[in-house]
Amino acid sequence: MSTDTNADADDESTSKCGASSTDTEAETSSSESESKCGASSNETDDSSGSKCGASSSSSSSDSSSSSSCGASSSDDSGSNEKEVGATIEDFDAEPGQLIAVGLGPGHPEGMTERAKTALLEADHIVGYTTYIELIPDEITDEAEDIYDTPMCGEVSRTEESIDRALAGNDVAIVGSGDPNVYALAGLALEILESKGATASMVDFEVVPGVPAAQSCAARLGAPLVNDTVSVSLSDHLVPMPEIESRLHSVASENFTITIYNPWSRKRRENFQKACEILLTHRDPDTPVGIVHGAGREDEQVMITELAELEELGESEIIDMTTTIVVGTEDTYVWDDRMVTPRGYETKYDY
Amino acid sequence: MSTDTNADADDESTSKCGASSTDTEAETSSSESESKCGASSNETDDSSGSKCGASSSSSSSDSSSSSSCGASSSDDSGSNEKEVGATIEDFDAEPGQLIAVGLGPGHPEGMTERAKTALLEADHIVGYTTYIELIPDEITDEAEDIYDTPMCGEVSRTEESIDRALAGNDVAIVGSGDPNVYALAGLALEILESKGATASMVDFEVVPGVPAAQSCAARLGAPLVNDTVSVSLSDHLVPMPEIESRLHSVASENFTITIYNPWSRKRRENFQKACEILLTHRDPDTPVGIVHGAGREDEQVMITELAELEELGESEIIDMTTTIVVGTEDTYVWDDRMVTPRGYETKYDY
Repeated sequence: MSTDTNADADDESTSKCGASSTDTEAETSSSESESKCGASSNETDDSSGSKCGASSSSSSSDSSSSSSCGASSSDDSGSNEKEVGATIEDFDAEPGQLIAVGLGPGHPEGMTERAKTALLEADHIVGYTTYIELIPDEITDEAEDIYDTPMCGEVSRTEESIDRALAGNDVAIVGSGDPNVYALAGLALEILESKGATASMVDFEVVPGVPAAQSCAARLGAPLVNDTVSVSLSDHLVPMPEIESRLHSVASENFTITIYNPWSRKRRENFQKACEILLTHRDPDTPVGIVHGAGREDEQVMITELAELEELGESEIIDMTTTIVVGTEDTYVWDDRMVTPRGYETKYDY
Repeated sequence: MSTDTNADADDESTSKCGASSTDTEAETSSSESESKCGASSNETDDSSGSKCGASSSSSSSDSSSSSSCGASSSDDSGSNEKEVGATIEDFDAEPGQLIAVGLGPGHPEGMTERAKTALLEADHIVGYTTYIELIPDEITDEAEDIYDTPMCGEVSRTEESIDRALAGNDVAIVGSGDPNVYALAGLALEILESKGATASMVDFEVVPGVPAAQSCAARLGAPLVNDTVSVSLSDHLVPMPEIESRLHSVASENFTITIYNPWSRKRRENFQKACEILLTHRDPDTPVGIVHGAGREDEQVMITELAELEELGESEIIDMTTTIVVGTEDTYVWDDRMVTPRGYETKYDY
């Protein structure tokens, strides 16, 4: 996995990291953080020094730069481990609140009222630049500070948001989709614990959002409907053999399958392997929906068959920001929409 | 399956059919529609006659009542099939639009902007009474008509919404959570087809909402995070052996599992069997989150261990409106929250 990292980073820097169709940003960021983000570490230094507020601001910026950008694994003593920065002992203030907010597909109308309220009430908003730019001005204008970084450092950004909350600010950390879908909720809790803090200390809250699976399904018609599974093909944190095993298990059962992070130039094999596994268990004419850039100006929606999927990996509609929905043996295409029946047709004549 | 139906209906009429924690309404309604909804059929007669607008109003009300309420399967010639009512030939008007709207967990702040806009723009809003009541007055007051029925007749309500759209009204049909999660999107498309209409004819659109899995996960902390699966234990439309097979397949892999429709008095065995299957593959101390009535005044949230789950089926926290989230071997409980790690801890020391 680690040998792919630098290569992945090169690839992902040119990929279209859209906010709306997937929750991949974290994966992209992590890959890049280990190899090419010197620029970002400068940003981190600047921003931490002036905005964090904690007595440990210089050390946290150092640690942020070492944990997010610049230092690749090969520059270390050989270990991939990066040190956490400030711990709870470094802060004097009464902690503020930390809220993880899911923005949904990435356009303002896809956000919940609750998400908007949480952002309006936050002192600081932290997130990946592309997602921050999707938040309406009337919301970001109300914040005391916005901390955003480009494609780099989900871990460091999450740590930064926690430091700011421990320093007494009410902080909202944002991501696309939902915070529980390949996203930041778990990471935030892990980092809080490592700092010797608790979730209760920052009154940690998760504001759910519409996941990419459902945003994209909506563009395809009714492809999900019954028991369903989400699988990510990114092997950055999970070994590919394990992903393959999961695919086998669900493809052999009647689950609709949503595939996140389906493809990158350096992970073509993962995508090819996934297609192969799906074809092992499902008919070649099984409907498959592909949504790229859901809700964005360059949105592309396609309904195809499983047999055609692998080849489409080489087309522009499939990249890391694409979401793919694989139908079951019951799914059919009608009037340009994927339909997976609920099962009522066995009981009702309609 | 059908032998359980009447018994299920008795049971589900007394169950707390909360809007917020699950997308079970359809299952509940279908069970009841086959056995006990004489009152609803009267409502349907009244409302169809005065509001539908189609020349087939009387026949659609007859078919609505026969397809949703009153006539149990035993009253028929022995077949479970119910006839669809009006078809496209019965309508003269230029069709209006039909939009399937996901309300999310069921309180106004959990709705997206887009959902609110869709409801404000609709002439008619159709849905299960409990969900209709959750929509803010400033939205329902704008509609020309609201068609709601109590626990009964998802099929007939969906058909009613389509008839109204074909009659020229812009119609929004609502459900909790998301329309692609054990819900109405697929059913709407199936019924449209059966009427000889097309989705394009009514400019059919799906407005996604936050599913119960993510609403409930948010109350538990960060239990999902990685590859995840949703399974419904309702065997109303899917045979239990098939559900068991799916559970085996995903429980033996490292998926977080969200269980919808976990329990009813007449389906205790399904729940018990599910617990048994999970324990076959996962450790007895695997964290399990239980959320009942998410976001409502009577909300209950509990984190327990897999070994305790079966017994909790007999407690009030678990019923048809409960959502259960089963952790993986990596999930742990910290500061009263479920945490499933992303996997960064193997790469970063934090």
